[in-house]
Amino acid sequence: MSELRSIAAERDAADPLREMRDRFDLDDGVTYLDGNSLGALPRNVSARVADVIEREWGRLRIRSWAESGWWDAPQRVGDRLAPLLGAPPGTVVVGDSTSMNIFRALVAGLRMNPGRTEIVVDRTTFPTDGYIAQSVARLTGATIKPVAPDEIAPSENTAVVLLNHVDYRTGRRHDLPGLTASAQRAGARIVWDLSHSAGVMPIELERNNVDLAVGCTYKYLNGGPGAPAYFYVRSDLIAGLDQPLAGWCSHTDPFAMDPEYRPASGIAKARGGTPEILSLLALDAALDVWSDVDLAQVRQKALSLTEFFVRCVRELTSVECVTPLDENRGGQISLSCPNADKVMAELIARDVVGDFRPPDMLRFGFAPLYIRYADAVRAAEALAEVLR
Amino acid sequence: MSELRSIAAERDAADPLREMRDRFDLDDGVTYLDGNSLGALPRNVSARVADVIEREWGRLRIRSWAESGWWDAPQRVGDRLAPLLGAPPGTVVVGDSTSMNIFRALVAGLRMNPGRTEIVVDRTTFPTDGYIAQSVARLTGATIKPVAPDEIAPSENTAVVLLNHVDYRTGRRHDLPGLTASAQRAGARIVWDLSHSAGVMPIELERNNVDLAVGCTYKYLNGGPGAPAYFYVRSDLIAGLDQPLAGWCSHTDPFAMDPEYRPASGIAKARGGTPEILSLLALDAALDVWSDVDLAQVRQKALSLTEFFVRCVRELTSVECVTPLDENRGGQISLSCPNADKVMAELIARDVVGDFRPPDMLRFGFAPLYIRYADAVRAAEALAEVLR
Repeated sequence: MSELRSIAAERDAADPLREMRDRFDLDDGVTYLDGNSLGALPRNVSARVADVIEREWGRLRIRSWAESGWWDAPQRVGDRLAPLLGAPPGTVVVGDSTSMNIFRALVAGLRMNPGRTEIVVDRTTFPTDGYIAQSVARLTGATIKPVAPDEIAPSENTAVVLLNHVDYRTGRRHDLPGLTASAQRAGARIVWDLSHSAGVMPIELERNNVDLAVGCTYKYLNGGPGAPAYFYVRSDLIAGLDQPLAGWCSHTDPFAMDPEYRPASGIAKARGGTPEILSLLALDAALDVWSDVDLAQVRQKALSLTEFFVRCVRELTSVECVTPLDENRGGQISLSCPNADKVMAELIARDVVGDFRPPDMLRFGFAPLYIRYADAVRAAEALAEVLR
Repeated sequence: MSELRSIAAERDAADPLREMRDRFDLDDGVTYLDGNSLGALPRNVSARVADVIEREWGRLRIRSWAESGWWDAPQRVGDRLAPLLGAPPGTVVVGDSTSMNIFRALVAGLRMNPGRTEIVVDRTTFPTDGYIAQSVARLTGATIKPVAPDEIAPSENTAVVLLNHVDYRTGRRHDLPGLTASAQRAGARIVWDLSHSAGVMPIELERNNVDLAVGCTYKYLNGGPGAPAYFYVRSDLIAGLDQPLAGWCSHTDPFAMDPEYRPASGIAKARGGTPEILSLLALDAALDVWSDVDLAQVRQKALSLTEFFVRCVRELTSVECVTPLDENRGGQISLSCPNADKVMAELIARDVVGDFRPPDMLRFGFAPLYIRYADAVRAAEALAEVLR
């Protein structure tokens, strides 16, 4: 056995999270390093969704909105997500896509800052964030200022700052506490997109006084393809929240069918229209996985696994690592190499699954609940083989 | 056997759609007349969703976005819905809730009519339509004019008219061809909400030159709880469509991760963020039910069933029918009676399931694919029993 394989075997044996892998449906023949894009399937999801379809929909039908808890599920599942985000109960609601929630958050943020008209947006952001910010700017008359996250320099005209916690391309983690404080010192509101950090590290939204946050649930949270996004509002801002996509589910008394809009008093006021129950309850089941997980262990393993992968890559290849090797990363390593699209296709043909992002980026996600040190070695060995 | 029961037995035996009921999972002990709120479960849905979860997500994982057709599903399922709406291929896309799509449609409609600032809204509408219209008005500076659908009287300042095809409370069907022509004669765009008519009658969007339409899929279309909504754009308007909730899935080359937004050329430009795949593919399976259904037969049966139910109610009770008894209705009958909330609770306790809408409305939905004339008699008999 190679030295790297021996080290991996030792670390896997000593891993306090090693038994978590059994909660997922995985093939040992595939090294799945794309959990930063679509998380693996938790074993309990299929039975739960079958019950939702066959019994809750099939037998109880309309009664399930009350009796099976469908109506309150956006808040209930939000409360289950809250500990993963460092958020108190009653501050997170689940529903709609991340794009819709960014729209919701930016307009709400602008309305918290009347008189200010600038939206500062991470210029390296996942594109949808930028597209939606442009759309909000057109509708509200706001202007967009694209900046690198470390240089946000909010002005006295900055209403709201939209940043990604971990960059989808480089895997770099931005300084959430520092940038939040910096935005707020200038009187701006901050919106964090946590899509690439939730589930791979503790987030601590409340401790860091974050105003608003959004994120998807289908990456490290394993909620399934296109699982609904979440929306976080700091407790003291909920009463004044004024959001633009407030459908009937956000009304204080929805079944009164009141022609006049009167928002719910709690986080339900951030809801939209009727939630997509099958996707929402698949996520609910997927969150069972986290019931007894220590996020400090998750963070430690994410750092250790990614560091070990980079060590393997450096010993076996000469490919460049783009992701920061201090602690400013999440669970993803991005490598830059020529013909990265073809290299990734070859890796996938060898059952090592990461993904490619233009122009030259290989991305590998290390979901700490189910990825092993042995997977890191195998991926690096396959990469070396492809590059030879 | 009572005369009404004899008539029902004859009509059920002669019903050309009688075998369709076998496609649904129903208890013969329950008279389910709430399919206008949540359609019954088609038998094939559960196995399809299990396959999506266990094989497409569980085994293929990220590859399913391409190999299992997840990426194109919003357009593909839209094309499957199109014949039910009288829409040509490439004009319907599925995703997000009806509320989000009303937002999308109203802003897009305003942008088709620059210089005009008035939105005319059905004042009897399902509340979410009105709430969302108010939100659009605040963001765009438009004004709202609430009117009864028969009195829309669009002016030279009317940009867009939003109407419900069938009213959720009264079950009344509005004149889609006539009101469309009337709005367009005044230079306004029209948006139809088809939530309570699709699946119970032919719609003929293209033949009637409708500009934009939206609707939910969880009522007569049986897509499951909160199944995603659809958005229709008339073919010649797609090139100019300018919608406000354009997430990354609406980009012409989404995986280029282009910081600049460039919309797709076809109906994909009406997409938003990542679609909720489990709910979307449950709908896809549910649409199998319609593959060989003649919508003219569906329409005929909806009229005949509802007429027969009203006849039974009149023979057995003195409750007032609110729904028009000419052809201006869909598949729903609304009765007005004192203490309607308590009456409905008693009916449900007798396994006759309709619903209550304030202040005094009993609603009964007659989904022509699975409701029988015998169900109409039974519901009327139970109502008479409760009222005695």
